Amino acid sequence: MNVVLLAGGVGGAKMAEGLAAAVGRDLSIVVNTGDDLELHGLAVWPDHDTVAYTLAGLDDEVRGWGLRDETWTVIDRLEGLGGQEWFRLGDRDLATHLWRTDRLRAGGRPTEVALELGAAMGIESRILLMSDRPVRTQVLTDDGWLEFQEYFVHRHQEPTVQRVRFRGAEAAETTTEVLAAIAHAGVIVVAPSNPIVSIDPILAVGGIRPALEEARARAVPIVAVSGIVGGKALKGPADRMLTALGEESSALGVARHLLPLISHFVLDRVDGGLEPEIHGLGVDTLVEDTIMTDDAARARLAEAVLQFATTSADARR
Amino acid sequence: MNVVLLAGGVGGAKMAEGLAAAVGRDLSIVVNTGDDLELHGLAVWPDHDTVAYTLAGLDDEVRGWGLRDETWTVIDRLEGLGGQEWFRLGDRDLATHLWRTDRLRAGGRPTEVALELGAAMGIESRILLMSDRPVRTQVLTDDGWLEFQEYFVHRHQEPTVQRVRFRGAEAAETTTEVLAAIAHAGVIVVAPSNPIVSIDPILAVGGIRPALEEARARAVPIVAVSGIVGGKALKGPADRMLTALGEESSALGVARHLLPLISHFVLDRVDGGLEPEIHGLGVDTLVEDTIMTDDAARARLAEAVLQFATTSADARR
Repeated sequence: MNVVLLAGGVGGAKMAEGLAAAVGRDLSIVVNTGDDLELHGLAVWPDHDTVAYTLAGLDDEVRGWGLRDETWTVIDRLEGLGGQEWFRLGDRDLATHLWRTDRLRAGGRPTEVALELGAAMGIESRILLMSDRPVRTQVLTDDGWLEFQEYFVHRHQEPTVQRVRFRGAEAAETTTEVLAAIAHAGVIVVAPSNPIVSIDPILAVGGIRPALEEARARAVPIVAVSGIVGGKALKGPADRMLTALGEESSALGVARHLLPLISHFVLDRVDGGLEPEIHGLGVDTLVEDTIMTDDAARARLAEAVLQFATTSADARR
Repeated sequence: MNVVLLAGGVGGAKMAEGLAAAVGRDLSIVVNTGDDLELHGLAVWPDHDTVAYTLAGLDDEVRGWGLRDETWTVIDRLEGLGGQEWFRLGDRDLATHLWRTDRLRAGGRPTEVALELGAAMGIESRILLMSDRPVRTQVLTDDGWLEFQEYFVHRHQEPTVQRVRFRGAEAAETTTEVLAAIAHAGVIVVAPSNPIVSIDPILAVGGIRPALEEARARAVPIVAVSGIVGGKALKGPADRMLTALGEESSALGVARHLLPLISHFVLDRVDGGLEPEIHGLGVDTLVEDTIMTDDAARARLAEAVLQFATTSADARR
């Protein structure tokens, strides 16, 4: 069965790993590119690379981001030359950016470059970019509009986010690869990523939301997994963002945020008390252990999500 | 006394180090940029960096090029991704290229970027580029015209060089910094670099040869040190190049090649027998130990060269 996953960084990567264990080459991951940036002239794709490193088994599970056995020789030397490196690129990570920037400068289409990189890393599933054109997530704070990584990395997510926008998303159109993946999907999964700055930019790209709506109209289940557990984000500022934007920092808030797109919703056991209210929104619900602490937990959650989505889809007929 | 050195890579760097020990901030080095290249979108300046690393005391004296304590994590990983890396950049070296490329992309003039880098490395002397505009040394071989580094690094200097050209040298003009340095020079030194592909490109840049001729007309000594010792190049293919181009692979051949520009010529003791013939060309000659095996040898040769040039200049009055 073909599975499409909409994914941001760490939460998306864990979900991708679980789904890849279940369906392998039948998994297409549509990654958020709104966090991408250019550093030292190099194309840096943080969410893409987090997913890629995880699927390639190269991720640093202790630190939670980047590559295992990473070293920092280049960036240390850059700092020695007086550079101010708030976005510290590791040596092995840097190789990815050099490799990619080379291909892009040679005229490679970003999605093709991503697929080529996936192949070079031995990744069986397909990692697709939400668009080949630049989309830039920006957040409005007391200091005005900030680029996402300026807010996220440089300012440690400290400023309160008043608004979010996705520059270029209107004009960007998604790719034929993403449209084909959605058209052939048996299940579409929304990863437990930050709904506001990881999932929303994907949905804002021209063509993706209509394609998903069309899939739903064909009774293809769209199942979201909550990244808010016990009112807190598993990682990152999603909880504070939801609150600051006038939404509720809870699994219920996430479900409301993603409606009316989704048909199915998975929430953690600690939030079991919210199930009736979420079910009342008109989505099928599943209460599960959603914390993906290790490979086994990732695979188990992925299996549960797929079974939940497909079984209930059968039951509805 | 202000000293100007025309320099290529390794031989130029050793001479620069000796002269810097003698005159420090009064030394301006005009480096060949004809070997520069773009790799992975990064501005790589091999001759400049060889001089800079040597003057900063960071050079690897055992290997003879690049940085001491260099590591190769990035390039190894790039190769792991399937890249074909015939020009292997070390990690610490890479930081230089990233730093520089950043500055250039931000609109920095190449010479200013070079001076800024020198300051960041704590280099007292000034390293000047022969031009701010691109000049590309190319060599004609049986396989047609090759970019210099393609010939030098990728093909290990194996093809026979039939002709050499400096693309863009006609249109490139030298900088106000180079012209000012030459105008204020008390001595001009031509390093024991490859005369054909390290010194000639400098002389081919618009404005440099006339400025040097004007200096000579003001009785400023221009002293060349032979990089051919006992008929062999100390490093690189200069000997084979001289032969292939119909010149003589000897200190005499080097002196002839640099005439009528130079007023003084330094040759190694092993070539002492050539002194009468070189003197007969109309240049003052000095026979010296020219092999700069260590810091002390570099400083000693530099002192000898400066004394030779300035003393005989006085004597001619």
